[in-house]
Amino acid sequence: MKAQKTKRKLQIRVMGSAADLKYTKILERQAEELGYWVAKKGAILIFGAEKDYDSLSTAACRGAKKANGLTVGITYDKGLNIYKKNADVIIATCLVRGGGRELTLGLSCDALICISGGSGTLNEIVVAYQANIPVVVLEGSGGWSDKLAGVYLDARKRVKIEVAKTPKEAVEMAIRLAEKKPQIFCYRN
Amino acid sequence: MKAQKTKRKLQIRVMGSAADLKYTKILERQAEELGYWVAKKGAILIFGAEKDYDSLSTAACRGAKKANGLTVGITYDKGLNIYKKNADVIIATCLVRGGGRELTLGLSCDALICISGGSGTLNEIVVAYQANIPVVVLEGSGGWSDKLAGVYLDARKRVKIEVAKTPKEAVEMAIRLAEKKPQIFCYRN
Amino acid sequence: MKAQKTKRKLQIRVMGSAADLKYTKILERQAEELGYWVAKKGAILIFGAEKDYDSLSTAACRGAKKANGLTVGITYDKGLNIYKKNADVIIATCLVRGGGRELTLGLSCDALICISGGSGTLNEIVVAYQANIPVVVLEGSGGWSDKLAGVYLDARKRVKIEVAKTPKEAVEMAIRLAEKKPQIFCYRN
Amino acid sequence: MKAQKTKRKLQIRVMGSAADLKYTKILERQAEELGYWVAKKGAILIFGAEKDYDSLSTAACRGAKKANGLTVGITYDKGLNIYKKNADVIIATCLVRGGGRELTLGLSCDALICISGGSGTLNEIVVAYQANIPVVVLEGSGGWSDKLAGVYLDARKRVKIEVAKTPKEAVEMAIRLAEKKPQIFCYRN
Repeated sequence: MKAQKTKRKLQIRVMGSAADLKYTKILERQAEELGYWVAKKGAILIFGAEKDYDSLSTAACRGAKKANGLTVGITYDKGLNIYKKNADVIIATCLVRGGGRELTLGLSCDALICISGGSGTLNEIVVAYQANIPVVVLEGSGGWSDKLAGVYLDARKRVKIEVAKTPKEAVEMAIRLAEKKPQIFCYRN
Repeated sequence: MKAQKTKRKLQIRVMGSAADLKYTKILERQAEELGYWVAKKGAILIFGAEKDYDSLSTAACRGAKKANGLTVGITYDKGLNIYKKNADVIIATCLVRGGGRELTLGLSCDALICISGGSGTLNEIVVAYQANIPVVVLEGSGGWSDKLAGVYLDARKRVKIEVAKTPKEAVEMAIRLAEKKPQIFCYRN
Repeated sequence: MKAQKTKRKLQIRVMGSAADLKYTKILERQAEELGYWVAKKGAILIFGAEKDYDSLSTAACRGAKKANGLTVGITYDKGLNIYKKNADVIIATCLVRGGGRELTLGLSCDALICISGGSGTLNEIVVAYQANIPVVVLEGSGGWSDKLAGVYLDARKRVKIEVAKTPKEAVEMAIRLAEKKPQIFCYRN
Repeated sequence: MKAQKTKRKLQIRVMGSAADLKYTKILERQAEELGYWVAKKGAILIFGAEKDYDSLSTAACRGAKKANGLTVGITYDKGLNIYKKNADVIIATCLVRGGGRELTLGLSCDALICISGGSGTLNEIVVAYQANIPVVVLEGSGGWSDKLAGVYLDARKRVKIEVAKTPKEAVEMAIRLAEKKPQIFCYRN
């Protein structure tokens, strides 16, 4: 089927460490800035909605709302009852947290932006890589973002993990990469 | 965790037969009206986004866009490349069509409205029933909607399938039922 | 890819009401007989492994073990910790109970046999129907088995729900239907 | 619920690169030896069943069959039609390849053994880590096995990736670690 042009807004995922990894206030502010710029640049923010605690991803949701963006929270198991109350749309994946919900998250995006991050973030970077979805990491944010900056995840060399210096640059880079993606994954442009 | 009040809009799913079941123009118009009223009443339309053909659910999406509503298309497998081009948000469930994608669809809603419908529609009515999510069917639309009008799906008597006479009434009924639902499934009210 | 002949044993699913539906001792014995005959006829028993209570499906597992059959329990969420202790293999689907786990159950079989049954059983009959997998119901066992005996689930007329009078006949019928299925779903025969 | 002792056999997963990563004959032989020892030690082999090509995981299946072991192939999407013809049990996860099927694979095991491996292997190591399932890698096999040998995947320090020098040692180590696991994930011992 021939894909047609559309005015669908890009869906950008911001992800990073969860609260139990005790990230700094600086990282939290940068995550909010990422969300802010996603909204400001006209894209939809996709974030991981939790039922129990905060994360850098939910911080990005707060930032997006400051810029009046549209936010889509993707959660695990059943039930639309989530911890953060500022999602405009909530999706219950019916999959477990820790690999399942993260799959729907990673593959429902045109591009991913990653700040710091533990094993959950690594999981999503991997599924995005396998589906040729662009990933941008914020330089100096630690965790898997820094470990994977500039590399390919395996010898197949699908998509290189790109690096940005600031939240604004990360969002601009993610949008640029998403717009260049083959139509099979995104029919915009 | 105590659920708080929120201004989140209700998420209403309209579902029904797919194009291979050769539904009438009348049903298609009613499906569009369902989508129109979902949007008009301030709710978000959740619909099943297909990669190959039309359905009463995608007709509802067209109706919602006529009222400038927000539409969320939930699709199967990978890839945001869908057939209908008027979804505002697309979710790739990474689950198969025929029971998988339908699970995320059914459980990401505050209420479901059903018009006619074959086995796919039946599938979603069942998962909604099991999760105590209200279901309203349009009277006289045929298929599983008519077969299940007014019944409980098993001896557990979770939620009775409610019946409405017109698209507008169906949407009003769905919203009313969704607002009465226990907070575990929807924190609005 | 051309499918080759194989000696893989058929995978037969026995399903039915869960314990909260308070089925009779007679039904429980028939479910055990179904499991017994699945094993006796050389097939593998696929059953729904629960973490909290018994069901006609776990009763079938007991029956299969009496005939020294191989039993595969498919459970929901994470964790191989299940209630019944006589499964030889346990699969954690990472999907929710109530439509998710039931999907993997229904589609990991060459044929399904159904005894009585509430909404969970209905769910699996639907996904099997959509994937052209044969379904046999035990006559007179009540629930969705009796309601759907001899019908097609929609106007697509994929597979008719077949009816058997005894557990032994149900297993023989399921095996016969499975062996006639197109190779795309089963490469045996 | 108090878990009881059982005689259930341990389920050991062997995973590694897929054929498109052009692994050596030496690695293939080692993968077969891993499968051989899993069976020889009385455990069930869990492997990733593909519909199109070979992998180190399917090589392990061949090895397990040489020792008359029980092999369970877990595949993606619908359909039990898989490429390798020596699986005793086939599970159709109804999830996509590239994060979905891998989730069910990783979490349906008591322990994982990893040889070389690209992004798919990394994916499974991550989900296992998040669920506290032991992972053993074969020293010197390259890929993600060597990159992650001896490390924790994040600051949560759930389970350290253990290292073995030979296939036989890897299997013995995996069994030992699986038997020490908390009962919530495995009720054996």
